[in-house]
Amino acid sequence: MSGTLYGVGLGPGDPELITRKAARLIAEAEVVAYPSLEGGDSLARSIAAELIPDGAQEIAIDIPMTVARAPAQAAYDAGAAQIAQALEAGRDVVCLCEGDPFFYGSFMYLHARLAERFAVEVVPGVTSITACAARAGMPLAARNERVTILPGPLPEAELRARIEGAESVAVMKVGRHLAKIRSVIAGLGLLDQAVYVERASLPEECVLPLAKAPEKAPYFSMILLTKGADPWL
Amino acid sequence: MSGTLYGVGLGPGDPELITRKAARLIAEAEVVAYPSLEGGDSLARSIAAELIPDGAQEIAIDIPMTVARAPAQAAYDAGAAQIAQALEAGRDVVCLCEGDPFFYGSFMYLHARLAERFAVEVVPGVTSITACAARAGMPLAARNERVTILPGPLPEAELRARIEGAESVAVMKVGRHLAKIRSVIAGLGLLDQAVYVERASLPEECVLPLAKAPEKAPYFSMILLTKGADPWL
Ligand SMILES: C[S@@+](CC[C@H](N)C(=O)[O-])C[C@H]1O[C@@H](n2cnc3c(N)ncnc32)[C@H](O)[C@@H]1O
Ligand SMILES: C[S@@+](CC[C@H](N)C(=O)[O-])C[C@H]1O[C@@H](n2cnc3c(N)ncnc32)[C@H](O)[C@@H]1O
Repeated sequence: MSGTLYGVGLGPGDPELITRKAARLIAEAEVVAYPSLEGGDSLARSIAAELIPDGAQEIAIDIPMTVARAPAQAAYDAGAAQIAQALEAGRDVVCLCEGDPFFYGSFMYLHARLAERFAVEVVPGVTSITACAARAGMPLAARNERVTILPGPLPEAELRARIEGAESVAVMKVGRHLAKIRSVIAGLGLLDQAVYVERASLPEECVLPLAKAPEKAPYFSMILLTKGADPWL
Repeated sequence: MSGTLYGVGLGPGDPELITRKAARLIAEAEVVAYPSLEGGDSLARSIAAELIPDGAQEIAIDIPMTVARAPAQAAYDAGAAQIAQALEAGRDVVCLCEGDPFFYGSFMYLHARLAERFAVEVVPGVTSITACAARAGMPLAARNERVTILPGPLPEAELRARIEGAESVAVMKVGRHLAKIRSVIAGLGLLDQAVYVERASLPEECVLPLAKAPEKAPYFSMILLTKGADPWL
């Protein structure tokens, strides 16, 4: 019998925002896998660190941060092969995922490579979207409002059109796209309704009105915008 | 010193999908508050039941299910007044919220009534969106894809326009709008890419291709649609 692959969401960074199910699966794990930046840093591993049992086998999947796709594809191929080996040997593998595994998470690339051959269970986690909203004290959507989630690397014209047509907006993957996104939002006259959230729930967290955001944003940052719904019901 | 109001996300229904932080706050609570349907049923309370300490004060906020807004507004006013009384007496209040408090959650109406007078901390939870995606084995979005979240009660023409212009779509609050939503999706030729998820993570969970969904959907149901991104990276 092959093992089961668990794709386990860890939430946005505070280890207390791990669900009880994820905590249990990690604490019982024989094999844990996680993405890491070339060189070794892994946010996912650091969130779960205190839960990983001594002696668990660890599969670190080094993801090269290049614009070209082929090197990253090769890294996921190699990681999936290592995971498959453990599963074939009858061992369960717990794959650690920042936030939620199916929401802009790299687990999706492992899922695509392994889900046809092995039993997979995905354990959802708190996404960065609602974590950022909580830390900003900013309700996202109520009643019949619509929410649009946009990645920051989208072209300026598309960001403008999508933000204009939306009610509540979350822009992910801000990083070096901050100036572009801010100028789109300012151009639409919405600067006062937008907040900037960096590393929500982590010790270095920073929450600011978008107008006061720093010039340089790290990768783990987000912009939230709501067009002033009436929260009274 | 007044107490603190905690708005605590419980996730989609499985008590194991409560975060460790939410579980700790509930287990330590002196006062818990939650919305309930007129008559007494409360999904939020039932998710957290095993964690609520014996002897905790309970504030059930009965929400009348009417289309008119005034009766529900009056119910939130009355609930907020009871919560304020406990906070003024220096007691913390833990408000239980299905899913995430700031994501289509009724906690937003208490927040609007109380956040200016009292300290509030929102603890994010697993939303029904990623819980449904996990149970359907359906990755939501990767790379530069966009996600649109739509409430089912929206008019047919608006649903059509928004779904047509989107990549990944989640339709919340399906219930009695199922036939309308299904006909919009079928009309766009997207029926084969859509799944129907009812009561994700609960014992009565049901996951089906949208084409095979029952005629009648309960309130706790959702439709997910992705337009076939390449998950290989
Ligand atoms: C590859 S996506 C991963 C998203 C994750 N799977 C989730 O469910 O939130 C990375 C992006 O998520 C956002 N993000 C993740 N964690 C964050 C945090 N703690 N604070 C702010 N943004 C965060 C940032 O926009 C970042 O660029
Ligand atoms: C008032 S909203 C509350 C959403 C919640 N705060 C969240 O974060 O998911 C209720 C809607 O959420 C969706 N929902 C909540 N829990 C669900 C579950 N376990 N399975 C399927 N849909 C669910 C349904 O679309 C339902 O109509």
